[in-house]
Amino acid sequence: MLFKTKNIYRKRGIAVGEKKWWRLREIPDLDVEMEEAARKRVRSLTKPVGSLGMLEEIFIRLAGITGETIPDIRKKAVVVMCGDHGVAQAGVSAYPQEVTGLMMENFLRGKAAVNVLAELARATVIVADLGSLLEPVPEGVIDCKVRKGTRNFLEEPAMTVSEVIQAVEVGVRLAHQLGGQGVRLIAPGEMGIGNTTSASALAAALTGKDVGALTGRGTGITDENLVRKQEVIRQALALHQPGNAMEALICVGGLEIAGMVGLYLGAAQMRMAAVMDGLISTVAAAIAVEMEPEVKSYLFASHLSAEPAHRILLNRLQLTPLITAEMRLGEASGASLAFPLFDAAVALAERMATFADLGLPEPD
Amino acid sequence: MLFKTKNIYRKRGIAVGEKKWWRLREIPDLDVEMEEAARKRVRSLTKPVGSLGMLEEIFIRLAGITGETIPDIRKKAVVVMCGDHGVAQAGVSAYPQEVTGLMMENFLRGKAAVNVLAELARATVIVADLGSLLEPVPEGVIDCKVRKGTRNFLEEPAMTVSEVIQAVEVGVRLAHQLGGQGVRLIAPGEMGIGNTTSASALAAALTGKDVGALTGRGTGITDENLVRKQEVIRQALALHQPGNAMEALICVGGLEIAGMVGLYLGAAQMRMAAVMDGLISTVAAAIAVEMEPEVKSYLFASHLSAEPAHRILLNRLQLTPLITAEMRLGEASGASLAFPLFDAAVALAERMATFADLGLPEPD
Repeated sequence: MLFKTKNIYRKRGIAVGEKKWWRLREIPDLDVEMEEAARKRVRSLTKPVGSLGMLEEIFIRLAGITGETIPDIRKKAVVVMCGDHGVAQAGVSAYPQEVTGLMMENFLRGKAAVNVLAELARATVIVADLGSLLEPVPEGVIDCKVRKGTRNFLEEPAMTVSEVIQAVEVGVRLAHQLGGQGVRLIAPGEMGIGNTTSASALAAALTGKDVGALTGRGTGITDENLVRKQEVIRQALALHQPGNAMEALICVGGLEIAGMVGLYLGAAQMRMAAVMDGLISTVAAAIAVEMEPEVKSYLFASHLSAEPAHRILLNRLQLTPLITAEMRLGEASGASLAFPLFDAAVALAERMATFADLGLPEPD
Repeated sequence: MLFKTKNIYRKRGIAVGEKKWWRLREIPDLDVEMEEAARKRVRSLTKPVGSLGMLEEIFIRLAGITGETIPDIRKKAVVVMCGDHGVAQAGVSAYPQEVTGLMMENFLRGKAAVNVLAELARATVIVADLGSLLEPVPEGVIDCKVRKGTRNFLEEPAMTVSEVIQAVEVGVRLAHQLGGQGVRLIAPGEMGIGNTTSASALAAALTGKDVGALTGRGTGITDENLVRKQEVIRQALALHQPGNAMEALICVGGLEIAGMVGLYLGAAQMRMAAVMDGLISTVAAAIAVEMEPEVKSYLFASHLSAEPAHRILLNRLQLTPLITAEMRLGEASGASLAFPLFDAAVALAERMATFADLGLPEPD
């Protein structure tokens, strides 16, 4: 039975993968000449070589991404993708599913954590409903609802192939739209009760790591519920046995997670830098990299979440977080908190004196 | 011979310590009632309990420090204390001592890394000359020069007792002045060629850890010079055998480091939060805590420097850095980079909706 089920999914997954339907545009290579010019500029600044650490690397890569001597990253956007999860019925979260909708209204009123942090960083907040239970979708939220919540993946695949295609495409097109408006830095964020369960299952499928080592307390569940959450993930993976990232997304993913996968793909296609938030945002990035390895050059880590799977995924992506503050809120809150560090990286390269300004020779 | 020398220093050190001459004011206790009110406020915000991690702790402690429901930390100051080091003659740095003076002029022109970062964080930059070789002290730099550079501590104590007293008092009084002007967040920074050698020697004396494990490359010295630097530190500690923090400061410290010790003492006396930068700034904080343990409540870590002794000192102070970006520049650059995270901590608590706003019960 399991074997048969597995094969059906696998066929679907491979068919989905071979078409490359998400390639609305090609992903351009980084501008290596501009990277080289940026590297030279950084060496000319009045400081010991390498002493600005990761800020130097950020500046250099942003130059390669944007193709600009001084990357103009003033226009920033946080995209909070929302969706509900059928698996929430299994008691894996500290909050009922209605909270997804309540938080969407909170985002609209500008009173959630991400609104405060985005405002400090002068970033726009966009809220998109890909699959919440809330009806009607409130005015101000982009209505791109694929369906009201995913199916309970303890019983059947969370989404159909066509639902996943639809959700990913929403993200790709939204990224294109933002890129067209001049946004250069995008932070995919999310809201969805139950989505750390989905994300941890995806992380386990992607990395093959032990579910016990990957799974954290999400919004803050009890010991008992943590055991339940781990058991739910193990059962789901045993049932579906996804053979690749796309199959995993179909079987145990979420509509908002699929939307974020699209944001990362679309961002790379538009030469936008994408700043990952915590576990859920990062698992979406890891899936996008599985689909298109070139996406990786456009990714930046922001913070290290308290969710244990996050560190494992960042290691897999070979990206190092800038901030470690034990946050575990989602919404792109950690990415928004890190936005000023990207501004700092550019401002330093733009405004610091060079050795030539001081009449000194450059160091070797 | 060594034993006799050691006793002379020890007597001096104890005499210095027993007077508590640096106590221009008492250090007030934190306002525990305000901390409790802040803790309650954080729990009322629309997010999972504890999900803002260290930002929650920052807000709560700032409330205790300032005694305000919403701590007003808009006024921030970076104080760059400058001094030269006699030990630089031993070839422990990649740069000649003249660079200290050149960088002071760079600070004045607003073109050093710390200027750029402080401007982004809307913080004032103050430059004080406690002991550079530069003469005359340029206009715009606070002239509180105790002497032109320390003595070479491979041969004799870096400073006399009265020089250390003078330098620490400069810091205490400067902190008082800034506190009087309404500054609530202060970042002690430094510039001084050779000062990672001095700071590493101080860290070794304070912690008793192995010099090899503590000593890093500072501005970026070669393998050969790193071995030389470690040997210099070992020789100096064997020569002086400092028995406590004050003796260590006298024997292997620096004028700018003594000034920073004073800044931390003065900040705590004035209910100001002090944000530590990297190794040198943190070793000064650790010495201030040795002199007055109450200083610890006023300290915050900002970033983790690439200098190995920094992590060891932060562990000793039981403080966790927010940012890890492999920076090793000094000047309070890391502290300035972290300032926006403190603003974020306050803004979140001030502006986020509460559960009551959404008509929801507070979580248990």
